[in-house]
Amino acid sequence: MDSRVPASHLYQALAQQMLALVDGGVLRAGMRAPSVRALALQHKVSLSTVLQAYRLLEDRGVLEARPKSGFYIAAQAHHERALPSASKPPLRATPVSVSNPVFSVLAYATDPSYAPLGCAVPSAALLAADRLDRHLARCARVHGRLYNVYADPHGDAELRGQISERALRLGHAVPPDSILVTNGCTEALNVALSVTTRPGDTVAIESPTYFGLLQVLEARGLRALELPTDPVRGVDVAALDKALAARRVAACLLASSFNNPLGTRTDDATKAEIAAVLTRHGVPLIEDDIYGDISFGDDRPRPFSAISPTADIILCSSFSKTIAPGYRIGWLAANRRHDQILAAKFALSLSGAALPQKAMADFLKSGGYDAHLRRIRKAFADNIDRMRRVVDRSFPQATRMTAPAGGFVLWLEMPDGFDTDALYARAIRERICFVPGSLFTATGQYRNCLRLSCSHDWSARLERSVERLGEMAGEMLQ
Amino acid sequence: MDSRVPASHLYQALAQQMLALVDGGVLRAGMRAPSVRALALQHKVSLSTVLQAYRLLEDRGVLEARPKSGFYIAAQAHHERALPSASKPPLRATPVSVSNPVFSVLAYATDPSYAPLGCAVPSAALLAADRLDRHLARCARVHGRLYNVYADPHGDAELRGQISERALRLGHAVPPDSILVTNGCTEALNVALSVTTRPGDTVAIESPTYFGLLQVLEARGLRALELPTDPVRGVDVAALDKALAARRVAACLLASSFNNPLGTRTDDATKAEIAAVLTRHGVPLIEDDIYGDISFGDDRPRPFSAISPTADIILCSSFSKTIAPGYRIGWLAANRRHDQILAAKFALSLSGAALPQKAMADFLKSGGYDAHLRRIRKAFADNIDRMRRVVDRSFPQATRMTAPAGGFVLWLEMPDGFDTDALYARAIRERICFVPGSLFTATGQYRNCLRLSCSHDWSARLERSVERLGEMAGEMLQ
Repeated sequence: MDSRVPASHLYQALAQQMLALVDGGVLRAGMRAPSVRALALQHKVSLSTVLQAYRLLEDRGVLEARPKSGFYIAAQAHHERALPSASKPPLRATPVSVSNPVFSVLAYATDPSYAPLGCAVPSAALLAADRLDRHLARCARVHGRLYNVYADPHGDAELRGQISERALRLGHAVPPDSILVTNGCTEALNVALSVTTRPGDTVAIESPTYFGLLQVLEARGLRALELPTDPVRGVDVAALDKALAARRVAACLLASSFNNPLGTRTDDATKAEIAAVLTRHGVPLIEDDIYGDISFGDDRPRPFSAISPTADIILCSSFSKTIAPGYRIGWLAANRRHDQILAAKFALSLSGAALPQKAMADFLKSGGYDAHLRRIRKAFADNIDRMRRVVDRSFPQATRMTAPAGGFVLWLEMPDGFDTDALYARAIRERICFVPGSLFTATGQYRNCLRLSCSHDWSARLERSVERLGEMAGEMLQ
Repeated sequence: MDSRVPASHLYQALAQQMLALVDGGVLRAGMRAPSVRALALQHKVSLSTVLQAYRLLEDRGVLEARPKSGFYIAAQAHHERALPSASKPPLRATPVSVSNPVFSVLAYATDPSYAPLGCAVPSAALLAADRLDRHLARCARVHGRLYNVYADPHGDAELRGQISERALRLGHAVPPDSILVTNGCTEALNVALSVTTRPGDTVAIESPTYFGLLQVLEARGLRALELPTDPVRGVDVAALDKALAARRVAACLLASSFNNPLGTRTDDATKAEIAAVLTRHGVPLIEDDIYGDISFGDDRPRPFSAISPTADIILCSSFSKTIAPGYRIGWLAANRRHDQILAAKFALSLSGAALPQKAMADFLKSGGYDAHLRRIRKAFADNIDRMRRVVDRSFPQATRMTAPAGGFVLWLEMPDGFDTDALYARAIRERICFVPGSLFTATGQYRNCLRLSCSHDWSARLERSVERLGEMAGEMLQ
């Protein structure tokens, strides 16, 4: 069974088993699927359960129903696209200048008249955070006066307690007083960078990496040292070691899991190695765990700081990708530099909005977050799955794509020489937005790559837009 | 009539007239006040109106009721304390290092077991922002989903529209698209500094100045050039001109009005002169108008940018001092550098929390803010008035104090050689908090000064605390 989709219902489990047979090559394109009756007998389930499973697979383009003949494996049901190659960025510290192109993309990415393949923000419809909103409404009604003060600059104590409790479930000891609540993960990264770097310093990062992070480096006058990164395993440890030996690096900034745009999942042993290499070179690690809760597997991966608790690590995260982009609640946790961190946060924005923090604390205490996470993990995994199938059947043969283990973005690699900036210009004219690969680096790479966001509820419009992108890419390759 | 207290009721107007007679020396300590009956006849008001006025003046320590004998002018009713002298800071750029002592004071200033003379934050009880909270509750209930997105990094469009409309009433054209909503005024100042300065640069500021501003300069690696500042008129224009001619200054950062801690009100002509001097030297002005709405006069002073609309000025402000410190909604408006400003804000924290901004917009549209401002202006003016009287009767004869034209802090200057750090240490032992003068400068001045906050509802405890501070100061002077 595909571990990326937790099967909460019988028919879903059944669909997953069928999918595994397809992906494993047991059932091939054009073959007749087992009859509904046979499958029901074999699995000791009702006919309607099998039918539900088959309808689901039909929706996803895995099966085709042929009138009076039953179900058949669809032509493009099985995808076996190659993964993008591991990146090989030039190993030099580079000044960062990405802000202008990023803003031009963001303008389209947030415009609802464009197909939303650009912005890596879960749609509000998909998040359906109504219970959190009700907590906020109640807090405003009941606690308004009590909370109309500059909050403790550390952030709401109950919220820090809840974050600490959740970490403990992963075996990660994060004391509440080591946590600082911030205005989103972006502010957390700013605070972390401000206590570890000074303008002109070099920061080692994954490549490709999230353009927003590059903007933060740009605004702080920092240089980027991009590291070779594998689309499955993450950063190349030997290359990191060598890079740190060759030059002074003020900090290393990595995604804890499911980095944007590759969706990598680095295993625990490699994380421990990376932390050890950084410790040996005396380089602090800033880890960004913003996608960690959106794991498609049965377990939620542990951040570096859980695996290497004594290393010099500042853990940054937020609730923006999982429940509330509109609330702007992020946080960081560190095992040293507490005074400096507090002073840096205080100098940036004093403290955060008090009532949203209290509402988030109440929501977490109510136990609603886990059920919410189960729901959205499944939704994102389904979205990624559908998107991969549509890419598979629509994009030119040479297109490679990631198989993300979490998160909600796909990274596509076209043949060398392909120009996704040109594809972007064409796509925008047809009101389709995505993010061209050139924005994910400070070194001018990835012109043949692009990122598709799978963060909106699946729709016929999305599907058509991806198909159309694939067609355009095909035309450009001719 | 004292223009600092708008008389919204008859008895208040009457009390103000009596107060003017006392302050003008017509009625002197020990004299019998006009009889209730005589005053009622003279002013054609009811006996109960006069009694209300007299009770108010009794509460404030202006009158004393003597049983069976009527009302008398109290011994300390009339205060005529000298103002602090204009500051004469050393005219050199100074690295800033104030964060450690500031945090020690803040810990006491926010601890409710200490008399709250330290923190310049209106108490939630005094602000009584329940209507705003109800707007937030409604927004969360009704608009939760719609607003659960990364907001436009510029901030809520309706809120920017409301801010623009309010500015227009002062004859100040601030187009909505020149406005950027921030996480409080502190983030606005960070954005403004990030587009005008680089680490190591020098910023010209008032002296004494708000310690939080010094912390921002410290965190950004900026040097402070402190300017001679008069407690009534503000910055010395000639000294500013001379200072800018002598060295490169990257930006000048001034309070628009009622600067913290002096409560100055610079007149429009002087503001125009300052803007002209800065323009001549090519130095941008960052103005902080956070106290501008808390004017004790009949008019609300105009910011520099309203008076000199073509000068290079970034206007920063927030709603934190007037209605909602807990909401963290600030803003800035600029007439140039829009792209840089947006990129700087985006790199710091993407966007602000969406629902609080929407709630603030709804609250402003409802017209509730003006009534609210009328109420709190009067409350703060009353508080300042009472505090000045208590200081007057409790502190050593040589104590000077400001007569602020707005805001809610008082600045006291003790004789040369007096050590308010030592007074602070004693006061903390008696659970009284204030802020010693040494925190308001980067140059080690103002050891003989202190700031008292008048931002809480007046209480017997506050009164006793100020009296006790005065006693301790007297003991230390002997």
